[in-house]
Amino acid sequence: MKRLKITELDCVARDIRERILSVVGENGGHLSSNLGAVELTVALHYVFDCPTDKIVFDVGHQSYAHKILTGRADRFAQLRKNGGISGFPKPSESEYDAFSTGHASTSLSVALGFAQAAKSRGESCNTVAVIGDGALTGGLAYEALNAIGSEQLPVIIVLNDNEMSISKNVGAMSKYLTRLRVSKKYVRIKSEIKCAVSVIPLFGEGAIRLMERGKKFLKKIILSNKMFEEMGISYYGPFDGHNIRELVQVFSQLKDKDGPIIVHVLTDKGRGDESATTDPEHSHGVSASTGGKSKKFSDVLGSFLMSAAESDSRVIGVTAAMAIGTGLEEFSKKYPDRFKDVGIAEEHAVTYSAALAAGGMKPYFAVYSTFLQRGFDQVLHDVCIGNYPVTLCVDRAGAVGSDGVTHQGVFDLSYLSLMPNMTIMCPTDGRELNDMLQFSLGYSAPIAIRYPKSYKAEREHEPVEYGKWEVIKQGKSKSVALCVGPRALDAALSAAEKTDITVVNCRFVKPLDNELLDSVNKRGYKIVTIEDNVRRGGFGESVLSYLNAKKLNAAISILAHDDKFIDDRDVDSTLNASGLTSENLILTLKSLE
Amino acid sequence: MKRLKITELDCVARDIRERILSVVGENGGHLSSNLGAVELTVALHYVFDCPTDKIVFDVGHQSYAHKILTGRADRFAQLRKNGGISGFPKPSESEYDAFSTGHASTSLSVALGFAQAAKSRGESCNTVAVIGDGALTGGLAYEALNAIGSEQLPVIIVLNDNEMSISKNVGAMSKYLTRLRVSKKYVRIKSEIKCAVSVIPLFGEGAIRLMERGKKFLKKIILSNKMFEEMGISYYGPFDGHNIRELVQVFSQLKDKDGPIIVHVLTDKGRGDESATTDPEHSHGVSASTGGKSKKFSDVLGSFLMSAAESDSRVIGVTAAMAIGTGLEEFSKKYPDRFKDVGIAEEHAVTYSAALAAGGMKPYFAVYSTFLQRGFDQVLHDVCIGNYPVTLCVDRAGAVGSDGVTHQGVFDLSYLSLMPNMTIMCPTDGRELNDMLQFSLGYSAPIAIRYPKSYKAEREHEPVEYGKWEVIKQGKSKSVALCVGPRALDAALSAAEKTDITVVNCRFVKPLDNELLDSVNKRGYKIVTIEDNVRRGGFGESVLSYLNAKKLNAAISILAHDDKFIDDRDVDSTLNASGLTSENLILTLKSLE
Repeated sequence: MKRLKITELDCVARDIRERILSVVGENGGHLSSNLGAVELTVALHYVFDCPTDKIVFDVGHQSYAHKILTGRADRFAQLRKNGGISGFPKPSESEYDAFSTGHASTSLSVALGFAQAAKSRGESCNTVAVIGDGALTGGLAYEALNAIGSEQLPVIIVLNDNEMSISKNVGAMSKYLTRLRVSKKYVRIKSEIKCAVSVIPLFGEGAIRLMERGKKFLKKIILSNKMFEEMGISYYGPFDGHNIRELVQVFSQLKDKDGPIIVHVLTDKGRGDESATTDPEHSHGVSASTGGKSKKFSDVLGSFLMSAAESDSRVIGVTAAMAIGTGLEEFSKKYPDRFKDVGIAEEHAVTYSAALAAGGMKPYFAVYSTFLQRGFDQVLHDVCIGNYPVTLCVDRAGAVGSDGVTHQGVFDLSYLSLMPNMTIMCPTDGRELNDMLQFSLGYSAPIAIRYPKSYKAEREHEPVEYGKWEVIKQGKSKSVALCVGPRALDAALSAAEKTDITVVNCRFVKPLDNELLDSVNKRGYKIVTIEDNVRRGGFGESVLSYLNAKKLNAAISILAHDDKFIDDRDVDSTLNASGLTSENLILTLKSLE
Repeated sequence: MKRLKITELDCVARDIRERILSVVGENGGHLSSNLGAVELTVALHYVFDCPTDKIVFDVGHQSYAHKILTGRADRFAQLRKNGGISGFPKPSESEYDAFSTGHASTSLSVALGFAQAAKSRGESCNTVAVIGDGALTGGLAYEALNAIGSEQLPVIIVLNDNEMSISKNVGAMSKYLTRLRVSKKYVRIKSEIKCAVSVIPLFGEGAIRLMERGKKFLKKIILSNKMFEEMGISYYGPFDGHNIRELVQVFSQLKDKDGPIIVHVLTDKGRGDESATTDPEHSHGVSASTGGKSKKFSDVLGSFLMSAAESDSRVIGVTAAMAIGTGLEEFSKKYPDRFKDVGIAEEHAVTYSAALAAGGMKPYFAVYSTFLQRGFDQVLHDVCIGNYPVTLCVDRAGAVGSDGVTHQGVFDLSYLSLMPNMTIMCPTDGRELNDMLQFSLGYSAPIAIRYPKSYKAEREHEPVEYGKWEVIKQGKSKSVALCVGPRALDAALSAAEKTDITVVNCRFVKPLDNELLDSVNKRGYKIVTIEDNVRRGGFGESVLSYLNAKKLNAAISILAHDDKFIDDRDVDSTLNASGLTSENLILTLKSLE
């Protein structure tokens, strides 16, 4: 691409955009964020020399153009498929992917680390972080800005500003960026830059001299941004993020500079796809069409909050830029004063919820399992020590499929159950989730309710009682499957059609149902536990530890994910690889006999 | 106190300061931060009506004056003692302690939560967060500032600026505050305020009218701070944090205002104690004199880094405002370019370290166990998925004594061992720590080395070999104690003097020494594991799970902390309560026979 003329880059961008639209339409994926970053990515790769120069994409959900441009155009059809390329940067996939990522707000710390490493090793390279305005609300990004301002190493921060994180952008920083965008200065400068760009022929002999002059010109006309400047980071912008010619000029001039720089770039999220620009939030993550008839747990949470809010004035819903994904969209519209979207800021969301609870409210923090990891210390230190009645609604738990390794929700049972005062419940269907949420209304201590994206069908079940499991099928053999969540239960019920086992719905992962465990243990049952979580520290080990303390004389079998990262892109394939299937359950039961 | 005249408040402050000096001299505790906040606390309690109004102390290590003023003057002599009052705010201790705390940067989220709860409940009260400039470097505080600016609820943020977090303050924010402090405007305004204060008689009939005028006056002369104002938070200050009269006037005027406010207050950390003001970093946490001859692991880390840095140019030391506590002070002086103190910003420290490693460096992040909790997701998502060779030097692990419940380092073995790709080592003495650190130099994947503050003595030991434990004493009985860390080993060696058991130093908590486990299992040994960590997800359960998968036929005994928060203020007492003693080990072994 670097051999192309600058005028040809627009064609490159158009081809890339078409390719993204076609593959995401087929495979699912992050549509709008990738469409918004096409020209920006083309310009970055035109100017910078990767992999010597490092481009670090924050979150990484805007890296499709980057992948297509760095030797993965052919394999792009297998995006997010098992064995295909990842939807996020992955160093093991390509040396052009500078750093493994998937969660938000890490790019600035990473860029500073690369810049420091280069300095320490006496190497010279450019380090570019591409971060969205949404990811800027994460505290980690601020910690890094603070360090970048202090260290004064050459880090180029490209602020890809599309006025939207995943949900509508929130917070003071967002308002501030809006003010910047609409300032008169900006409008004036924009037109001047456009004018300047149009008269400067780039990359010829003459261009370099012209650019020398251009630098001063640009320097002069550039909007000096107080807030970033106060932190010691030079601010340039805003620029049109879809004007490749302008971006190439800007990056060429800012390349190889000393000290940290912020380049503020404006993009349209979903550019080039009508549905994605008019409704980018719904186009953020597009699922491949599956044809299945599964139901979403998030819908149940949404309905519950709607009715609970009506009858209980204490109820308040909190989310971290995930209103739609977690099912809170309708609630947010009906109860705008009782819906708090804090942006990508899970730490704050948890501590804030703890204080809401301490102040007499009943907060429900709806969050994806993988992102709750960000609030680990806040759950432990702020919610659990104070024993405040915060309910964590932990969605996308267990294997997540296409998003892959960085998004697996397979650690939560382990990291939550090590926390004193925490109660953990796992529903197997929507009705049960609703009953658990009802239960939480009357419970005055921390609760995590943990569930995957969907379930297949609903069934009748016993009322939810604290710490009690539910025997779903009483078999005649002396084998029992202790199941956590819908996937485990599905596997066990399917196995129960072929073998005469007892199937138990272990609704409470913490506390365990000691009475039931004592009973099956006393009667000499063979026990198999099944959970969509890592084995280490999970439900099965918890059961084992309890039985061991009771001097159990028989081994139990723990079916769970092994101690390794899972980059399967398909839920069934993941469950299969980890043996969380009816077939493996039957085999395991036989081996216990 | 509220009935006192304002002129009498200086005497109150003097008495409090003397009391703090005397009790901390006896019991240990946070000296300089508390001495710096005496007048500020007196003024706050004079103006605000607690517990209706909420005062939230960030970290809480400056709450001694608050405790003395809110009914705990008598019990203050038992500060940090078992059964005595806590060194941090604790709601179960007093209704005046608004929120349980101990870790930094939580106060702003908490204050916003309280303000929102009051609004939702239709109640009217003031919410005040007292936060140091050090805690402002934590990303959580920024996430909350962003939300506070956005929500526009009445939150009063008192920025207690003493130019020092725990170590020397770092980062762009700190430089920025320094610029504010030295600005000419500030100097001018200071003298005007002083003048204004001296002519306004407070709290009389006339005073109210004068204050109405004063408001405008104050509003006019107050320094309008762009950075906070940009976030939608009104800025007032800086004020002299030791001038009670001035502070009372300021708080009286800002009380009951709408919208969020920052009040910038300058204090001398350690005011009133000569050693604390001249050397506040060393006076940050003062230990009670014990007379023991224990040695510090942190000294070993410091020496290792000094010598490693000399021979290996990849070595770089990272800390989060804990240079002295973690042993990096000397290193920081000898290798200022290879020492990175990121301030109170554990998230950034971890992700930054991951990128340093990805860039070819060999980072050592020295951190207290309890504070590493803040970087949980960063260790999992940024270090472990990428499998980058970051070494986490996890100090103050296990029971911590006087700091109590919020600072216990008893969760790390659990939360670290659930992470794929992580290796966990636990030294039992300084020599072993040094050998483990040497080992880490040649190892190219994530490592956590985990140790308490101190150890008693050094011994000869076998070379460190990956995944291998060390048999320290081979007994004749068929019982083996599997020990993690110096405290467990001390208990076992002491028990071994009375019973003929085998004692194993389980240096690697992850991976386990499968060969050794298979061997003792095959030979029918009774196994007791001992660890200074919670049972849930810890070392013992890991051993149990391994043996269970191997179809073990005998129960093992796991000695560890129970699933509850520990607020013991004394290490021995904690170990005793949890049965991590030679006596309990002997009893447990008997019960297995």
